[in-house]
Amino acid sequence: MNCPGLLPGVGNAGKIVGLYPKLTNNKILNMNPILNELKTKAGAASQNLFGRDFLLTWEKSLADLETILTIAEDLKMLRDRNISPRCFDSGLAISQFRDNSTRTRFSFASAANLLGLAVQDLDEGKSQIAHGETVRETSAMISFLSDIIGIRDDMFLGAGNTYMREVGSALDEAFADGVLPNRPGIINLQCDIDHPTQSMADLLHLKTVFGSLENLKGKKIAMTWAYSPSYGKPLSVPQGIIGLMTRLGMKVDLAYPEGYGLIPEVVDLAGQQASGSGGGFRVVNTMEEAFSGADIVYPKSWAPFGVMQRRTILLQNNDYDGLKTLEKECLASNARYKNWECTEEKMKVTQEGKALYMHCLPADISGISCKEGEVEALVFERYRVPLYKQAGFKPYIIAAMMLTNRFEDPAGVLRNLVERNNIRTV
Amino acid sequence: MNCPGLLPGVGNAGKIVGLYPKLTNNKILNMNPILNELKTKAGAASQNLFGRDFLLTWEKSLADLETILTIAEDLKMLRDRNISPRCFDSGLAISQFRDNSTRTRFSFASAANLLGLAVQDLDEGKSQIAHGETVRETSAMISFLSDIIGIRDDMFLGAGNTYMREVGSALDEAFADGVLPNRPGIINLQCDIDHPTQSMADLLHLKTVFGSLENLKGKKIAMTWAYSPSYGKPLSVPQGIIGLMTRLGMKVDLAYPEGYGLIPEVVDLAGQQASGSGGGFRVVNTMEEAFSGADIVYPKSWAPFGVMQRRTILLQNNDYDGLKTLEKECLASNARYKNWECTEEKMKVTQEGKALYMHCLPADISGISCKEGEVEALVFERYRVPLYKQAGFKPYIIAAMMLTNRFEDPAGVLRNLVERNNIRTV
Amino acid sequence: MNCPGLLPGVGNAGKIVGLYPKLTNNKILNMNPILNELKTKAGAASQNLFGRDFLLTWEKSLADLETILTIAEDLKMLRDRNISPRCFDSGLAISQFRDNSTRTRFSFASAANLLGLAVQDLDEGKSQIAHGETVRETSAMISFLSDIIGIRDDMFLGAGNTYMREVGSALDEAFADGVLPNRPGIINLQCDIDHPTQSMADLLHLKTVFGSLENLKGKKIAMTWAYSPSYGKPLSVPQGIIGLMTRLGMKVDLAYPEGYGLIPEVVDLAGQQASGSGGGFRVVNTMEEAFSGADIVYPKSWAPFGVMQRRTILLQNNDYDGLKTLEKECLASNARYKNWECTEEKMKVTQEGKALYMHCLPADISGISCKEGEVEALVFERYRVPLYKQAGFKPYIIAAMMLTNRFEDPAGVLRNLVERNNIRTV
Repeated sequence: MNCPGLLPGVGNAGKIVGLYPKLTNNKILNMNPILNELKTKAGAASQNLFGRDFLLTWEKSLADLETILTIAEDLKMLRDRNISPRCFDSGLAISQFRDNSTRTRFSFASAANLLGLAVQDLDEGKSQIAHGETVRETSAMISFLSDIIGIRDDMFLGAGNTYMREVGSALDEAFADGVLPNRPGIINLQCDIDHPTQSMADLLHLKTVFGSLENLKGKKIAMTWAYSPSYGKPLSVPQGIIGLMTRLGMKVDLAYPEGYGLIPEVVDLAGQQASGSGGGFRVVNTMEEAFSGADIVYPKSWAPFGVMQRRTILLQNNDYDGLKTLEKECLASNARYKNWECTEEKMKVTQEGKALYMHCLPADISGISCKEGEVEALVFERYRVPLYKQAGFKPYIIAAMMLTNRFEDPAGVLRNLVERNNIRTV
Repeated sequence: MNCPGLLPGVGNAGKIVGLYPKLTNNKILNMNPILNELKTKAGAASQNLFGRDFLLTWEKSLADLETILTIAEDLKMLRDRNISPRCFDSGLAISQFRDNSTRTRFSFASAANLLGLAVQDLDEGKSQIAHGETVRETSAMISFLSDIIGIRDDMFLGAGNTYMREVGSALDEAFADGVLPNRPGIINLQCDIDHPTQSMADLLHLKTVFGSLENLKGKKIAMTWAYSPSYGKPLSVPQGIIGLMTRLGMKVDLAYPEGYGLIPEVVDLAGQQASGSGGGFRVVNTMEEAFSGADIVYPKSWAPFGVMQRRTILLQNNDYDGLKTLEKECLASNARYKNWECTEEKMKVTQEGKALYMHCLPADISGISCKEGEVEALVFERYRVPLYKQAGFKPYIIAAMMLTNRFEDPAGVLRNLVERNNIRTV
Repeated sequence: MNCPGLLPGVGNAGKIVGLYPKLTNNKILNMNPILNELKTKAGAASQNLFGRDFLLTWEKSLADLETILTIAEDLKMLRDRNISPRCFDSGLAISQFRDNSTRTRFSFASAANLLGLAVQDLDEGKSQIAHGETVRETSAMISFLSDIIGIRDDMFLGAGNTYMREVGSALDEAFADGVLPNRPGIINLQCDIDHPTQSMADLLHLKTVFGSLENLKGKKIAMTWAYSPSYGKPLSVPQGIIGLMTRLGMKVDLAYPEGYGLIPEVVDLAGQQASGSGGGFRVVNTMEEAFSGADIVYPKSWAPFGVMQRRTILLQNNDYDGLKTLEKECLASNARYKNWECTEEKMKVTQEGKALYMHCLPADISGISCKEGEVEALVFERYRVPLYKQAGFKPYIIAAMMLTNRFEDPAGVLRNLVERNNIRTV
């Protein structure tokens, strides 16, 4: 018999866990150092976070976004020290995923649990939504005792963000009518236009790597298309990146092969924002040009805007033959741009050859997850740890969005959480 | 490009949430007013709620039902004021949905969460039940650490309620045998005979609208069939309504086209109960007759009892051709009664033309969710807010059923919850 | 009409629940007797439980296994007395079931809930794992705020345990790299080699029935194959039993028809362990021989090791024709051994004719769940209650594995839990 690994000889997986802090009587003795470490400033929240849905980053002020970042950092600091940031005794966070998801699903569940909310999934397969219920009615029916609703709806161009606003209007109406005791807050977990939990996690990663938001001013980021052997990837990540980073005074290069443009209004917005922030925004047509002198590169595949428009119509009409034809056409088109791969060679032209490589994951890694893809295995491997850390910010960003949506004085809440001195584990 | 709504210009959805109460040191200063507002009377619960399954409203005394109502009101009052009604530190509420559900699923999850229980779904698709496990064994296996089991089983006439009692007997036996440390309580989330969480939520709605149960005496309610372009809708809602409202001294008219009768025993029971309560019960054969002078109308489609009997046999035999034939036949039969629609015209003959319109939702709204249906869009729209409020009572009714099932002295528990003075959010 | 049970006349299912203890001010007055009852000894845990995955019982010392047993007993004692053993304020237990499960799924959920963890299921159908994500990446992505990961992976010989170790290595790496704040512990919920939560629950059952582990020395247990009209049942239960019970000084007889052998290395291991413990281990080829003089019998069907090897290859190649052929062949082979049934007749040759009958459930009961199966209905019925109790230990075993994995001083944790004096229900 030859069954390697059937009976591992010595030892087993598992190492000593990250040790929980030493406690006296289940309390940490001195919380003052922790209070001093809190980054969120008193008076941080504005009327545009408290009770407001988080649907697009550019609907929020830069101060509001900074508040989200510091709250995420504070929550992570507390959790890392085993201090419970739980601020709900009970309550529900509803999730609705109209597309597959692993990491955002787990990030949402982690964030809800961290704050004390239970997740209830609205799975349209299991529910009566498929049977003609209106958005308005369902929105009210799932919200009688709910605090937060997270929605992913990124398949149909022109539909996802609109759907979230329809849900929002229904909730406004139900609250105004006295149907709901509170108006649950909505968090966009990815739509056709933006992916704010991703772009904000990305920004927190950049803040951490470069030391501060201030340090990002003048830094060059290359948001570029990359080759993938699949098609129909949403536009929300590149749009989210150019829609956010242009506000930080960064020099943003958007690069894609001819025909692979994004939603024009978002591109226009990026340009305006760059002017306002003292940064820059250019559209270029080679990966090399974008990479040149870049401090950060974000090479990622997406489908052209025009293709997504056609795809949306085909999907809405259940035109499967049309979809197959479109896919074939797109893959053939993609194949002309296999050289849009993030290689070690291309990385050399970045700032001192040491640009930070970013990706929202999962990436199409050449020779690993596909034959030819977005990134050379060597590049990906070299950045694996920072990439995972980048992803690790998402639960805290979502938790910060939840907390600011529900509490008017987030700095006060955080201070209370520290002074309460509840540890997460006995 | 023409993508309306892609980039909303000003503002965003979301309004200020229902404000949480002002707190001092995370406690509400004076709980006395809240204690005084509690409606549940000391000594409220009887041996027929504590430790007893809730399977049919007519197995419970009127006093018991009144206790459920006041507890539901008290729980809602606490939740609306952000006082935590959590009475479980940990524990499981098992849900088993043998039919699709959105609102009952969310109501059950909300109720469990409100009291501190986590929901674990018994999804027969994922489990080994499909592989021949007996009801007795599975009932024990899911119950070792469970507090409540909620079951929806409404597809097979003669089977759903019976199944719940089989589960109940298995739990009795397992508890008696020392297999289970507690005997979990069962809540009927809709069966072939009754839909008690619905009818009790409906009754709480009526109590709220009319001011008291006392005020319902002598009021006329029209439980009538209505046209729908679908077939096979369960009988449990109309049966639940006539089985409950006849006990309140109400004048209940049951109206349906010839051949659309309910389970005869339930109809008989309704008649007997009406005699006992000083109310009335009639079966009439036009919607107009039932509506005439009615204070409340409840027009809703259902399949004839005889059809449900045939359908049950066909389903049990997996006779899909037979099911198609039956469906065709029924839809043709339904189509003869398209005039059984709740219209503004028909509403005029109700009490002062202002009867309260009720529905368990989702309704088949003519011109909205279907071409021709149960109710005219104008009528539905006019009653949308009360309809949503009606639905909003269900989580609290289920929570009250859970609480009375688990605690011998519910009034004492509620008093404790207020005196404990835990807020739901930090 | 003839619908028996439609309208049960008198009473209803449900008896008085196991009464919660009388409390004063929501506290139990005197905890000293409960403190004295705790079985887990100070200094109980070793470095091989704390922070170590639980993948195979034979990777743990006997002292470690005894610790698991006493903690499970202590947790059950607390829960039975309504004292909350909750030691997590928040936290996630991830479950991944790569095969169907009811009882292990509910046991895992119960254990997590008992300790205060919320369950988040990694359902590969819903996630992006199917889209080529690597084990390493997914393992990190689901673990940012996770405490425990439970995995069932028993379909592929040579793959299930290996997969768990791959996940473990990925977690080790992610923790070492600073990606994870803690390194979640892995619990094997059944693999191709072992089923430790089952065998440990079985052992706790034996300890309870026979009074102590000491009393098990010299007792004879017959782990025998039994006929089943299905094929492809995993080997993990018989392997788990012979791999564990041979360490307790028991005399273990493994019986199966020719050709139905287990993984040879596990059989070798069982022999070595028996020598070391002063017990015995034999392979015999009739059920009667194994039953003869046995104190305990565990008759259960499984597929031959060789068949599982072929099946694994066929499954990996998606060779459905090959699988059908193999199934046919195996069922024909099984059919030659229909006399391998646990009957009252065979039970007579056991120790005083009163051996304890065990099964992991669900069993193939002749005349009940199948025409001819593993066990005669009379035998099964006679042992139903002990069988259910056997299954009832599993949630506590899993909770003990979770607790020892996360806490360095489990005896101290238990003592704290008692002294804290939190009741589970208000």
